[in-house]
Amino acid sequence: MDKKIILLTNDDGIEAKGLSTLYNILKKDKKFDIRVVAPDKESSAVGHAITVFDPISVRKKYKNGVFFGYAVDGTPADCVKLAIKAILDKTPDLLISGINRGANLGDNIIYSGTVSAATEGTVYDVSSIAVSVDNLKDLDYSYAAKFTNKIANLILDNGGLPKGTILNINIPDVLEDNIKGVKITCQSDAKFKDIFIKRVDPRGRDYYWMDGEFAKVSGSKNGDYSAIKDNYISVTPIHYDMTDYKAIKYFKKWKIDKKI
Amino acid sequence: MDKKIILLTNDDGIEAKGLSTLYNILKKDKKFDIRVVAPDKESSAVGHAITVFDPISVRKKYKNGVFFGYAVDGTPADCVKLAIKAILDKTPDLLISGINRGANLGDNIIYSGTVSAATEGTVYDVSSIAVSVDNLKDLDYSYAAKFTNKIANLILDNGGLPKGTILNINIPDVLEDNIKGVKITCQSDAKFKDIFIKRVDPRGRDYYWMDGEFAKVSGSKNGDYSAIKDNYISVTPIHYDMTDYKAIKYFKKWKIDKKI
Repeated sequence: MDKKIILLTNDDGIEAKGLSTLYNILKKDKKFDIRVVAPDKESSAVGHAITVFDPISVRKKYKNGVFFGYAVDGTPADCVKLAIKAILDKTPDLLISGINRGANLGDNIIYSGTVSAATEGTVYDVSSIAVSVDNLKDLDYSYAAKFTNKIANLILDNGGLPKGTILNINIPDVLEDNIKGVKITCQSDAKFKDIFIKRVDPRGRDYYWMDGEFAKVSGSKNGDYSAIKDNYISVTPIHYDMTDYKAIKYFKKWKIDKKI
Repeated sequence: MDKKIILLTNDDGIEAKGLSTLYNILKKDKKFDIRVVAPDKESSAVGHAITVFDPISVRKKYKNGVFFGYAVDGTPADCVKLAIKAILDKTPDLLISGINRGANLGDNIIYSGTVSAATEGTVYDVSSIAVSVDNLKDLDYSYAAKFTNKIANLILDNGGLPKGTILNINIPDVLEDNIKGVKITCQSDAKFKDIFIKRVDPRGRDYYWMDGEFAKVSGSKNGDYSAIKDNYISVTPIHYDMTDYKAIKYFKKWKIDKKI
């Protein structure tokens, strides 16, 4: 039987340690055919951007003389589109985006290149997950990679994810022994508090630097943010149907017509 | 009583006709205090990108010697963040993103700068709508602008939108008389069929151009795509909670633990 194909991508770039650790762990047990198509440089906070006005260059990337994958001069979503529609000879059985340096939780996932790559896989009906570690330093990703390997096996043994569902997985920044367990969560209402630092350039023109920190968390105890803070691994099923179904009835009552 | 403040932004850029037509119509009846903070250039398909590693410059923009608004060297989401947190003296009562050249329907809204700007407003609890016309030419936006003015009044008369709900409005590309009415819709499963055109540069390296067209539409008859094809104005309530609530029960049954 052919090996299952796993496509790896990320938003930290093809050189990122989180990606290579995951690659090595998945390669190790020789069950999977691993392909890498990732941005040639870091592209965090790009959201679900795609490149439509510029050409996208693709180069083969070697590590220690061995072919590692394709480096794409584009966004994470570009990588997934290109991988599935142009680079790979077969559609992958699973897409893993990560392992990302830094958590993707709460409202923040709308800015996440990591999550957008997984979303893009789902657009093509490929089972897709995003994996992040709650640490902005390049720590040891081995536990996270092994846990991801386990999840990959679980998904493929179950015949893939339900159509349209993406798993957004976050792993707390503690030693393995201190991880309390795994929670199936919802996206919490955790917001960044944005801070803009205003500067004036030498020609007298205004410019701003954006900075921020998690500030306001509300909503369900079953949220992703609470799970991570309590040292649980958070697994959030998400989808890209943004329809607010509960609101449809409300707006029908407005009886909007075309008259102006 | 103070006038209600409406913040206008878009992803076609501060020079776009859709934006200026809307500005003029809203200005006309003098009920609102209109502010414009928009990208200094076109930034379609940027998704929900924000600028975190670079400074963002902001310049005042004049039209015929009169102050028009702020031109931001950033994404639509940057514009909204900056407007609310740094540029405006007061939080706007309503944010309108548009009027966009080209529809934002189905799966496509995940790539949309227009929709992401409206989403960003909602992150700050500002009632926000995205408005697009199903035409890629710079046609006459007057009907769309007048309809948007009516919706703006409706929203403000109702005390704003429900917390977290965004309205994604699309207007069909037909004369006013041929518009059949207004439908409250859901996000349809309308996918782009991506086409990549492969080229080789003079140095022998591969690059790709992305192209595409709407191809696969399935799902509900109440979808935004069907409404537009049938010449109805489509009003879709959306939100940025991506949680797939129906899937939570399913994954709990997997009984995932932390063991590796």
